[in-house]
Amino acid sequence: MVTANQLSVCHARIKPYIHNTPVFTSRLVNKELGANLFFKCENFQRAGAYKMRGATNAILQLSKDQKKNGVVTHSSGNFAQALSLAAQSIGVVAHIVMPSTAPEVKKIGVREYGGIIHECTPTVEARQAMANNIANETGATFIHPSNDEHVIIGQGTAAMELLGEQPHLEYLFCPVGGGGLIAGSSLAVKYFGSKCRVLGGEPFEADDAYRSLISGKIEGNTSVNTIADGLKTTLGDINFPIIQNNVEGIIRVDEEEIVMAMQMIWERMKLIIEPSSAVAVAAAISYSKNNYKVFKNKKVGIIISGGNVDLQKLPF
Amino acid sequence: MVTANQLSVCHARIKPYIHNTPVFTSRLVNKELGANLFFKCENFQRAGAYKMRGATNAILQLSKDQKKNGVVTHSSGNFAQALSLAAQSIGVVAHIVMPSTAPEVKKIGVREYGGIIHECTPTVEARQAMANNIANETGATFIHPSNDEHVIIGQGTAAMELLGEQPHLEYLFCPVGGGGLIAGSSLAVKYFGSKCRVLGGEPFEADDAYRSLISGKIEGNTSVNTIADGLKTTLGDINFPIIQNNVEGIIRVDEEEIVMAMQMIWERMKLIIEPSSAVAVAAAISYSKNNYKVFKNKKVGIIISGGNVDLQKLPF
Repeated sequence: MVTANQLSVCHARIKPYIHNTPVFTSRLVNKELGANLFFKCENFQRAGAYKMRGATNAILQLSKDQKKNGVVTHSSGNFAQALSLAAQSIGVVAHIVMPSTAPEVKKIGVREYGGIIHECTPTVEARQAMANNIANETGATFIHPSNDEHVIIGQGTAAMELLGEQPHLEYLFCPVGGGGLIAGSSLAVKYFGSKCRVLGGEPFEADDAYRSLISGKIEGNTSVNTIADGLKTTLGDINFPIIQNNVEGIIRVDEEEIVMAMQMIWERMKLIIEPSSAVAVAAAISYSKNNYKVFKNKKVGIIISGGNVDLQKLPF
Repeated sequence: MVTANQLSVCHARIKPYIHNTPVFTSRLVNKELGANLFFKCENFQRAGAYKMRGATNAILQLSKDQKKNGVVTHSSGNFAQALSLAAQSIGVVAHIVMPSTAPEVKKIGVREYGGIIHECTPTVEARQAMANNIANETGATFIHPSNDEHVIIGQGTAAMELLGEQPHLEYLFCPVGGGGLIAGSSLAVKYFGSKCRVLGGEPFEADDAYRSLISGKIEGNTSVNTIADGLKTTLGDINFPIIQNNVEGIIRVDEEEIVMAMQMIWERMKLIIEPSSAVAVAAAISYSKNNYKVFKNKKVGIIISGGNVDLQKLPF
């Protein structure tokens, strides 16, 4: 079981490599939701997302010999860039398996951070097979984007920092994709919070975590037709039990709610947040409407997970 | 002549009504320009722009009797919203003369902040005439958006705060529209800076300040075909002499440079900045290319003037 000490040690370990991102507030948005919101702005994190935390922690856990052989992951999203930048900062080679269909802008990001791209056919099997091959051939250590204890602990440090500034948060909202962020955040809340409830936000179009919590086993997604491209992945066997034990529930939101939440934050707060982050905001909005009296004047944290948006493909 | 003391007293006066906005930095953008940039983020100011500073200062200068009769201005841009919010915060009525053609989103903003909109035909003469009429009928005090000493001093407090954090800035870039921001900023630099050069950014398509500095008299614009809608206005007789005395020069940038600078800040820094702010960034980029050796490793301030963007009309 992950301990409070592991989180604290992790935070000290990764500190030189990450930003302690600012916490933003907005009177206008508070008015809208009737509560006091604290936005932990991981869109300002290095590489533009919280993923930098877990990636850094995972690499720093490696032995000297392991570091020599580098790391490998499969991701077409923020973890690809984060692992590349974390590896570059630490002086380690990063192999990134990406589907050949990944947008050019993501590949450029990985290359800019010194990651070595290996293109594969766009199936789950192909990317896992290629990552395994690279690990076998080069000796690189495979690091999973979300289902890895070191990664989970690293992601939890964002909520730790937020609780350091706002120890009496009564709610914390996170987006749920692969489950690393919400698992880590729920551990941070367990050890460093005080009567704080952790809630996840998920698109109706990729509600595997919602269904998994109900059925008690990891469920997949049949379709993932959502703008929140970071949330299409499913939970893993390491983070799922942590989520089962420490997360109160998952709020599902539809695509229109996601876009409206994103637009609200862009317009009111002048923050570029990606659709996946908007899911957590939309979940808080939905929750505030359905629990108006309970939610009123509460202290509410929201993890703004990232700000990596393709400006050529905006929903407004 | 404006004194250092006037600036200091103004800052203390408006402090309870404004945000001391954060100063952002970016390693990626520093690398791009070869210098150390400090972005004073007035996009996070109340009402989304630095205009809140000058508007607040101007209203707080009024006598009790004047306050009773309210204030009036003509503006279709950020000053309309800023004066409305400043007036609301202080408990004063604000009359805002806006052209009937002003975008609905701007009118909604003014109304949300309690401003009373008076629509006029969209000519300079019509808006001045209507503002005069309102002043005569209601006794409201006319406050010009940029050519007013109290407004100029108020706008200078953003640069004051920036210099408080970074006293050894060697350059300061501001966008130039009506001239209030750069005039105030240049006074702040004069009194609180140390060998800092003030440079303005202007679109080629509205380069009245550039031409005015050369000819030595206030020049108008014949066309204003620029995306930087906040910079279409011309200098006034109060701010022009301040600019002549304290600003080193104006860097002109074309529309493509403006959009590229805006996109760079959105993508790299996750900050929503409006096109007028991007003009100052584009000017710094252009200057860095033309003065590569001089500019290298210098400490450079940029006033990010605002973040009010119509998401329906983005240039990318």
